[in-house]
Amino acid sequence: MKKLLYGVAYYDEYMPYDRLETDIQMMKDAGINVVRIAESTWSTHEPQNGVFDFSSVDRVLEAMNKAGMKVIVGTPTYAIPTWMVKEHPDVLAITPRGPGKYGARQIMDITNPTYLFYAERIIRKLIDRVKNHPAVIGYQTDNETKHYDTSGPNVQLLFVKYMKKKFKTLDAVNKKFGLDYWSNRINSWEDFPSVVGTINGSLGSEFARFQRQLVTDFLAWQVSIVNEYKRSDQFVMQNFDFEWRGYSFGIQPRVNHFEASKAFDVTGVDIYHPSQDDLTGIEISFGGDVARSTKGTNYLVVETEAQAFTNWTPYPGQLRLQAFSHLASGANMVAYWHWHSIHNSFETYWKGLLSHDFEPNPVYHEAKTIGSDFERLSPHLVNLKKNNKVAILVSNESLSAIDWFKFNSKSSKSYNDIVRMMYDELYKMNIECDFVNPASENFEDYQMLIVPALYTAPDGLLERLNEFVLNGGHIVYTFKSGFTDEHVKVRTTHQPGIINQACGVYYSMFVEPKNVSLKDDPFQVGPENNTVDTWMELLTPTTAEVLAYYDHTHWGKYAAITENRYGKGTATYIGCIPSQAIMKEVLRHAVKKANLWGINQELSFPLIIKEGINQDGKLLHYYFNYSEDQHSFTYPHQQGRELLTESKAETGQTLDIEPWGVVIIEES
Amino acid sequence: MKKLLYGVAYYDEYMPYDRLETDIQMMKDAGINVVRIAESTWSTHEPQNGVFDFSSVDRVLEAMNKAGMKVIVGTPTYAIPTWMVKEHPDVLAITPRGPGKYGARQIMDITNPTYLFYAERIIRKLIDRVKNHPAVIGYQTDNETKHYDTSGPNVQLLFVKYMKKKFKTLDAVNKKFGLDYWSNRINSWEDFPSVVGTINGSLGSEFARFQRQLVTDFLAWQVSIVNEYKRSDQFVMQNFDFEWRGYSFGIQPRVNHFEASKAFDVTGVDIYHPSQDDLTGIEISFGGDVARSTKGTNYLVVETEAQAFTNWTPYPGQLRLQAFSHLASGANMVAYWHWHSIHNSFETYWKGLLSHDFEPNPVYHEAKTIGSDFERLSPHLVNLKKNNKVAILVSNESLSAIDWFKFNSKSSKSYNDIVRMMYDELYKMNIECDFVNPASENFEDYQMLIVPALYTAPDGLLERLNEFVLNGGHIVYTFKSGFTDEHVKVRTTHQPGIINQACGVYYSMFVEPKNVSLKDDPFQVGPENNTVDTWMELLTPTTAEVLAYYDHTHWGKYAAITENRYGKGTATYIGCIPSQAIMKEVLRHAVKKANLWGINQELSFPLIIKEGINQDGKLLHYYFNYSEDQHSFTYPHQQGRELLTESKAETGQTLDIEPWGVVIIEES
Amino acid sequence: MKKLLYGVAYYDEYMPYDRLETDIQMMKDAGINVVRIAESTWSTHEPQNGVFDFSSVDRVLEAMNKAGMKVIVGTPTYAIPTWMVKEHPDVLAITPRGPGKYGARQIMDITNPTYLFYAERIIRKLIDRVKNHPAVIGYQTDNETKHYDTSGPNVQLLFVKYMKKKFKTLDAVNKKFGLDYWSNRINSWEDFPSVVGTINGSLGSEFARFQRQLVTDFLAWQVSIVNEYKRSDQFVMQNFDFEWRGYSFGIQPRVNHFEASKAFDVTGVDIYHPSQDDLTGIEISFGGDVARSTKGTNYLVVETEAQAFTNWTPYPGQLRLQAFSHLASGANMVAYWHWHSIHNSFETYWKGLLSHDFEPNPVYHEAKTIGSDFERLSPHLVNLKKNNKVAILVSNESLSAIDWFKFNSKSSKSYNDIVRMMYDELYKMNIECDFVNPASENFEDYQMLIVPALYTAPDGLLERLNEFVLNGGHIVYTFKSGFTDEHVKVRTTHQPGIINQACGVYYSMFVEPKNVSLKDDPFQVGPENNTVDTWMELLTPTTAEVLAYYDHTHWGKYAAITENRYGKGTATYIGCIPSQAIMKEVLRHAVKKANLWGINQELSFPLIIKEGINQDGKLLHYYFNYSEDQHSFTYPHQQGRELLTESKAETGQTLDIEPWGVVIIEES
Repeated sequence: MKKLLYGVAYYDEYMPYDRLETDIQMMKDAGINVVRIAESTWSTHEPQNGVFDFSSVDRVLEAMNKAGMKVIVGTPTYAIPTWMVKEHPDVLAITPRGPGKYGARQIMDITNPTYLFYAERIIRKLIDRVKNHPAVIGYQTDNETKHYDTSGPNVQLLFVKYMKKKFKTLDAVNKKFGLDYWSNRINSWEDFPSVVGTINGSLGSEFARFQRQLVTDFLAWQVSIVNEYKRSDQFVMQNFDFEWRGYSFGIQPRVNHFEASKAFDVTGVDIYHPSQDDLTGIEISFGGDVARSTKGTNYLVVETEAQAFTNWTPYPGQLRLQAFSHLASGANMVAYWHWHSIHNSFETYWKGLLSHDFEPNPVYHEAKTIGSDFERLSPHLVNLKKNNKVAILVSNESLSAIDWFKFNSKSSKSYNDIVRMMYDELYKMNIECDFVNPASENFEDYQMLIVPALYTAPDGLLERLNEFVLNGGHIVYTFKSGFTDEHVKVRTTHQPGIINQACGVYYSMFVEPKNVSLKDDPFQVGPENNTVDTWMELLTPTTAEVLAYYDHTHWGKYAAITENRYGKGTATYIGCIPSQAIMKEVLRHAVKKANLWGINQELSFPLIIKEGINQDGKLLHYYFNYSEDQHSFTYPHQQGRELLTESKAETGQTLDIEPWGVVIIEES
Repeated sequence: MKKLLYGVAYYDEYMPYDRLETDIQMMKDAGINVVRIAESTWSTHEPQNGVFDFSSVDRVLEAMNKAGMKVIVGTPTYAIPTWMVKEHPDVLAITPRGPGKYGARQIMDITNPTYLFYAERIIRKLIDRVKNHPAVIGYQTDNETKHYDTSGPNVQLLFVKYMKKKFKTLDAVNKKFGLDYWSNRINSWEDFPSVVGTINGSLGSEFARFQRQLVTDFLAWQVSIVNEYKRSDQFVMQNFDFEWRGYSFGIQPRVNHFEASKAFDVTGVDIYHPSQDDLTGIEISFGGDVARSTKGTNYLVVETEAQAFTNWTPYPGQLRLQAFSHLASGANMVAYWHWHSIHNSFETYWKGLLSHDFEPNPVYHEAKTIGSDFERLSPHLVNLKKNNKVAILVSNESLSAIDWFKFNSKSSKSYNDIVRMMYDELYKMNIECDFVNPASENFEDYQMLIVPALYTAPDGLLERLNEFVLNGGHIVYTFKSGFTDEHVKVRTTHQPGIINQACGVYYSMFVEPKNVSLKDDPFQVGPENNTVDTWMELLTPTTAEVLAYYDHTHWGKYAAITENRYGKGTATYIGCIPSQAIMKEVLRHAVKKANLWGINQELSFPLIIKEGINQDGKLLHYYFNYSEDQHSFTYPHQQGRELLTESKAETGQTLDIEPWGVVIIEES
Repeated sequence: MKKLLYGVAYYDEYMPYDRLETDIQMMKDAGINVVRIAESTWSTHEPQNGVFDFSSVDRVLEAMNKAGMKVIVGTPTYAIPTWMVKEHPDVLAITPRGPGKYGARQIMDITNPTYLFYAERIIRKLIDRVKNHPAVIGYQTDNETKHYDTSGPNVQLLFVKYMKKKFKTLDAVNKKFGLDYWSNRINSWEDFPSVVGTINGSLGSEFARFQRQLVTDFLAWQVSIVNEYKRSDQFVMQNFDFEWRGYSFGIQPRVNHFEASKAFDVTGVDIYHPSQDDLTGIEISFGGDVARSTKGTNYLVVETEAQAFTNWTPYPGQLRLQAFSHLASGANMVAYWHWHSIHNSFETYWKGLLSHDFEPNPVYHEAKTIGSDFERLSPHLVNLKKNNKVAILVSNESLSAIDWFKFNSKSSKSYNDIVRMMYDELYKMNIECDFVNPASENFEDYQMLIVPALYTAPDGLLERLNEFVLNGGHIVYTFKSGFTDEHVKVRTTHQPGIINQACGVYYSMFVEPKNVSLKDDPFQVGPENNTVDTWMELLTPTTAEVLAYYDHTHWGKYAAITENRYGKGTATYIGCIPSQAIMKEVLRHAVKKANLWGINQELSFPLIIKEGINQDGKLLHYYFNYSEDQHSFTYPHQQGRELLTESKAETGQTLDIEPWGVVIIEES
């Protein structure tokens, strides 16, 4: 990117009356320089089969260009027109819940050739029409694409072919997946039953992997079409999203972001998060770190909240804080979903920058300050580069497998809870992270790896991790890591499988903790925090040092958390789900052990620090105050300039930071 | 009505052995003078297609007549026979949950012509047979009729035709309903998708309106058939019911009572309510006020509870209190569902006046006192007329629209909660109310209108309400009123739409209150009651006086509740969901402001007062003690006679009222 | 049985690598002398339609025999192969939830002739092949058989024929089932609607009875096939299970164990139960008492837990305690599900005796001590006989009927809660019980009957119970007993129906208790325990003595619990759901009244006593310590020998018993 983008999703088609000129003027007043259009309105652009009407696209492009605004054009394929479903009802995905119904978006079978035929046609028509327009800087393919649980007979057939190609013989499948169990053995490919009813977690996890591959393939196919048209100065991106728990919570179960992003020029993401008193910045940082890691470079925040819901409407200062937080993680664009609040239909209360009355409001007024600062500071802030020492290893496969094998029947905790439990503490102690996945080949770029619940993994991956430690790295593992192979088959060796070598512990039993604490409160967290829940492995150290034993009449002889020197490195093993407070202390201990404790760790949440090198090669220090209180801190780095106030910052100087405030210092 | 009716539903067909003579004798002993029959037993009366057997009807009519009892005959169309479903499975309604199954009542598609053919035939056969019988005083069509979510392909087709007729063009539909959103645009009538899957709240709300019209039409059709037969001294009525939350809670979502009641001679209703320690009389009053308002005159309580469930079995005195409460709201009939408790099937534990053993029991003994008093006092009590000053404006359309757009994702509160929140406080301060609906033309009959959450309304309605204030009326609005037009499209003007003129406030933002109170406890309700939940609009007064500001770090500059002088009248606007205690004070304030605070307001719940003019033109004052404690009060009105005890009541006299007791004074 | 069996379920087919010799050696080391095989792996034994491969059966039989181990062979019919479902999808049961999907076990229609054809063929092939093998001591038919809610059109047709045969005419059905209600009347057999949608509790309960008969018939059919082959020294058994609430909680709703067990040589059961701090032994005792009562003799525990789930992994000592507790109830076999933990699929975390690593672990080591003691003490412990004085009358029919007619709409309590409420207290006061059912003819073998909620019963049964009291027996009834006849039609007589004669009370009203206690705390349980919930009948004594009145403003004149002398016996009637503490005192009082209070009642839970006569005619006294604490007790019986320690036990001697410990004394 040459400059920071500040954008909104814009739906001229939804407008209750013609406002294009007025809207553009208000956008320009707010410093907005890019809009995203067209991704939701196939039925407007192709009102009948083969009849095209791009007039609203044309008119928006013209008006935007005239005003010096840029446009990202989306392919409108994630929401299908009524005529298509009436003509070809089989474009609707059949899911485990049954046949689909028209109404919502994202209801089609992304493998259906009828759908693909129409999708390809509208993509070609649209992109061909706009490709030469000077306002168009890039494209988005589809939107928040997933597989929508498509699993009808045709998808089942694709899956059987996939299995045949991957495993060659049914003997191999039966063996690796343990299909003799409950008479699930398949002795002829013709007998392969629909996976929808399966109770076999290995098969279910393989199907989840196959479904993620469908998404990767679908997106790559769209990109290949767009690439036939796009200019060399244009980009194509996707709008990825995260596990949704009412907000962007964790790793996306239905898409492998690392794989799917390969086809794209740049990674785009949705980031939605709690706000008001619950605003912490964690999701901004988490989503940004994932997005940046997919391609190892800057990314675009394609959608984030403006006013949104009643419980998200930002307090004064929060919209600003959020915008600069995105930049501090490496975003080159911050765009709101959406410009105006919608007057009908479904997302009427997911409010945009403007309320339904289109008038300036407090949130819009705050956006104006952001736009103005983005414009002024763009040369300093754009294309920020990171050089993180810590990476978190995440695994879609482990996520799916743990969905099949819950920690226990009462707990709602799942893979992402463990990921977030660790990520959140690193965030709060101002340790910046990248993400890696099992296919990543850059483990050695890091001094420390965080490995939450790597439940399913091939031998090779675990051996690479052993080698990482041997060569001087530090790994922090949690429970369940190494337990099963790549087919979610439990290893028959000592647990934790293979990594027991680097960790210096083993176990063969695990229990549910009830009234279990850690003996003698080794992390000094006090009785209310010295707790363990949901899962505990009964660890016996071989070579490891015990950091904590369980406190329990019968399980007290077993270790809970251990640390092991292996070669030149160290492996920490957390055999249970400890309290958040214990997790914090274990990570703090490991960070110190790995010599990663620095000057920035002297501050902690709610004071958040992000750093990077800007395109002039200068070090930037972002300070954020994620609280309602005024704070001050001593600036410890080399002398520089605070960019927002355009004032000097001396080493050792005490700086004030407003409630929900931002300070950005560029070293001289 | 010439006299008060005291009745029961009677099912000779269900009896385990022949008890007709015995039952009639026991009824007569209890003063019961009318029974309702035949509405549930189609399969008994038409055991096979075209084979009719009305012998149980004949024998009950004969026996009743002989004993001087009257009979209401119901058309048995709400529960269909097995043979019909076996011969024509398509009579079962297809709903969003899929095809229907035989078993329960109210499972058919009320638009299905096969069903309608058979229904018409049995109605004609039955009514023709009984019409000349001297015992028959009237008819009930069907029972608790609703649309049962019927939404199969034929209903969808009717809906498309309805839309075409109403909106003429798809361009109009697309625009008004915002169908460009998520590619829902319909460009050809043939493409109109089933509404079952829609995510468009405007379309969903229109479908709800259409479904209510189906009920109105179906009932009017039944009435037109019955009217061909009925004698001039006979009436035809329907048994309407209310939103069911385990009891009769609020406005019926699936029927427009105002519209549907037009075809009938008299309105009948079901009223079921909590009992024992939870008996308040509110549902009796609420249901009665709605029923009386539909046709502006007296109504029949077709069903109410006798022993009913284990948590409803009345304490001594309660059955009596309930019966007279019905009369005090304008009922001319009180009838129990049902005479005897049922020995099999489904409602075995919904007990009647008699237990399963058919013997006299405490509840039956109490009924005897009621029957005796009804008989004796009928000339004084029947045909009570009201002259209320306050009306509540209710809107089925707003109810449906708020079902689509909940206050927030966590709250279970809906439209009727707001209606009841206001109604309950008026009840408790002894302000008697009527109900009006958007089609009512008699707003001017009232001095005060209560307008809860009028979320969807055409401009004209809001302008009429402005005019009502201008001309000297007082309106109390809550939040969300005026927000959307008649197509549930959010207004693009200042909110609250149009009524901001009379209310003198505007807002463009609304948030979820967390730890929000009203500044300085303006209504003196104490810290535990000075709360706001679920919804708050950030109000800015233009001309209004602020009654309460929010107390909150960031939203404290906005008003919560305002009052505005407009023309000769006043408009109160409540921008949030306050505690019940605050609502009480706001309404009390408004009532006083409107000069409606009178002598009856000096007493309050649990002492409830109802008034009216009897057919002799005399003023009746009912006093009810809805509590377990003895109370006394000073009688403030003109001298009269206490009817139950036949004693004098002097102005200023102190009168005692028993726990769960009743006092009825007729002014001389 | 000649000796105690100590066993495991063994799945050679599931093994990740060949371990047969190693496993057998480890089993022998642990004293395991029997394995159960083959019941889950049809698809391995018949990989294609008509192609058989019993090699894994052969090889296991050979190896076991060589090692002197015995084998129980299961018919593999409860989990069907993929080829069958692909060839004949109609073998899957259609249930009220719709058509079935392949994947899990127990998904077929057990009346489907295609399934039955294939089942018969594999049974004949398998049993014929193994019948002469010296290792084979017996057979299991199917596994945990139930009807799986099968209710498709063919099952409906069978039901109609069953109804025709049982009731002859529809007039009878309509009358007895009350089908006039809601127009459910059936006037032609062709019109009989699917029971799936019925709202008639009488019909629903009859269908449940019919479904249980399907299970009885299916199992008897399997047994008849196996019996054609089995040697005279071999047995055939079924593995029955209980109402599952995450463990074996109560009477099985879907099988009549008394009826279904008749076809078998011996009764086998699954017993799974809470463990760790929640281990009480109640389910071991309950399941054992039911199993023993079905055929009035010893039974086999075919499956119980080894390590199982994380919340069940036994504390040291618990596995031993459990094993001897099974024997003390009359088990001749204790077998674990299962030998090794499974590496794939569904029950991966339902761990066996071995963990996934197959290595000796603490639980395995404890099993070794059990195996060794079983071997040594078998002559003393096998074939223990009981001579209990108390029996509990349980009724599948009442269970089903109460599922139709819940105590109230908010309570989740059902029939088995009442059964367990009473059973648990008897267990804790060391009163050993048998179970009887309505068809049992041996009531007179007991001095006391416990009759929980006998909601549906024919006149004859209630008259037999009256006679039991008349002749000197003691019965403790709860509320709802006698309320309906055998068609779940409420009796029209005084309640409790028919038994009011022996109980000397009547009632016609019942209410939900709110803040109700028993007047003056008659059982001295303290205010926190002196409570009544969910259900209370308003009892009026005729001849009964009142043990407790309700404490309530309005219901205080009614009795809650009564006792009546009738003939030579006594009937206690509990008209409400009291607290567990009150139930304990009522039962204690009744036991004393019945002269059943003995020396063993001086000890109570956590010290549990079980007794019986061994095959040498000697009296055995088992003492169990179901607690974490060391206890001691005075041995009160005749002098004997403690078998585990091989030491003398003198009358009056003080004996210590370890936490989770066992003491077994054989009188000399």
